Amino acid sequence: MTVNIKENERIDDLQLKGLKIIQNPNWFCFGIDAVLLANYAEVKSKAKVVDLGTGTGIVPLLIYGKRNPSQIVGVEVQDAVADMANRSIELNNAGEIISIAHMNLKEAPKKLGKGKFDVVTSNPPYMPAGKGIVNPEDQKAISRHEILCDLEDVIRVGSELLNTSGKFFMVHRPLRLVDMLLLMRKYDLEAKNIRFIHPKPGKQPNLMLIKAIKKGSAELKIEKPLYVYDENGEYTKEIHEIYGDMWETEEK
Amino acid sequence: MTVNIKENERIDDLQLKGLKIIQNPNWFCFGIDAVLLANYAEVKSKAKVVDLGTGTGIVPLLIYGKRNPSQIVGVEVQDAVADMANRSIELNNAGEIISIAHMNLKEAPKKLGKGKFDVVTSNPPYMPAGKGIVNPEDQKAISRHEILCDLEDVIRVGSELLNTSGKFFMVHRPLRLVDMLLLMRKYDLEAKNIRFIHPKPGKQPNLMLIKAIKKGSAELKIEKPLYVYDENGEYTKEIHEIYGDMWETEEK
Repeated sequence: MTVNIKENERIDDLQLKGLKIIQNPNWFCFGIDAVLLANYAEVKSKAKVVDLGTGTGIVPLLIYGKRNPSQIVGVEVQDAVADMANRSIELNNAGEIISIAHMNLKEAPKKLGKGKFDVVTSNPPYMPAGKGIVNPEDQKAISRHEILCDLEDVIRVGSELLNTSGKFFMVHRPLRLVDMLLLMRKYDLEAKNIRFIHPKPGKQPNLMLIKAIKKGSAELKIEKPLYVYDENGEYTKEIHEIYGDMWETEEK
Repeated sequence: MTVNIKENERIDDLQLKGLKIIQNPNWFCFGIDAVLLANYAEVKSKAKVVDLGTGTGIVPLLIYGKRNPSQIVGVEVQDAVADMANRSIELNNAGEIISIAHMNLKEAPKKLGKGKFDVVTSNPPYMPAGKGIVNPEDQKAISRHEILCDLEDVIRVGSELLNTSGKFFMVHRPLRLVDMLLLMRKYDLEAKNIRFIHPKPGKQPNLMLIKAIKKGSAELKIEKPLYVYDENGEYTKEIHEIYGDMWETEEK
């Protein structure tokens, strides 16, 4: 398979069943949040999945490598980023399962169909649009700030895409927890599990994973903390297990 | 000071500035949640405090022993329990600062005044009224189940009692987190800090402390976990520090 690689782009080996991803380090490379989200998402065999704000397609590629879904749609609004994601899918011969829907995620329910999906994942922009100086033409800014969609859009659209009892998995910053839980309940998504991610023991969490169920009953479980580093500054055993073979890539 | 002690009651020494508390072990004795709440509550010198559902008055007594408030009102609906709390106040000569308002907490804003307090604390019943078999005449049931007030009453009343920027501190079970955050925002209390309490490292939390500010801005901080026991089943250093001198009582 020959795929065109553009200036400043590179191909990274995901060390997971030979999967590769095209990234441009000047824009935005995937981080631990995407890896943790893909690991956290429960995707049953033959499930239909949407990833909202998929970027270069890291979450679809990891779910494709780890699970056995029948379909994964990555929704991405940015031209150049969606194009990279499409070329990564081609590079991995994954086009029968993964597709990229190049559009603002607000269009997704109309274009992809309401209530047709079993799982929605999202690693959305973390920062409100108004905070800090941002250039709206800048891919980094669109990935990080709520410029083209906000948290309410992501949650409303996720709910609309899901069938009853469908599962929504998101990674976000703890400081948005109140907004997130309120919006989820507003749109018929009931938060069932939250796992806080702490850089190390004794530190406050800087990320959280959340699982919600469409029209689920109200009973939240806070899971045990996930620590990234141990007391000695080494990755914890659990992080090693989540990264698995991908690990080698990170160490280089 | 001579105070009448009734059948089945006992006097426990709080090992904090000579403070004592009357309890009846057949009903309900204070637990670690009350101690953690009293320690978590930020009470400035000369602050005016209300404790909603005060029981035997443990939270007012601990705040009285640790801080320098000008007034603490403990609101308690149950006759016999309010009577025990009153006798504990008498036993400690604390009547100039602490008083017991014997009423359903729903009456508190009308009786105590709206917007007149700097701090509200509450260790409310954790269980919804409908869950499990309960005897509504039973003191234990009223302390544990939402029979005479529910979470919405506690949060609404707490908000009404507080002045702008007044602080609300509560201890509750994590499974009520979504309800709690929704109700807080509904009643102008913004959650600012949450601390999850885990029985030991690697276990999910079974309690949480929450701090909210009346008309506060939206930005939540999840604090580092509080562990009760360490890996060896011993109380952690932090728990020892919170209990301080009270510790000796617990070890007996």
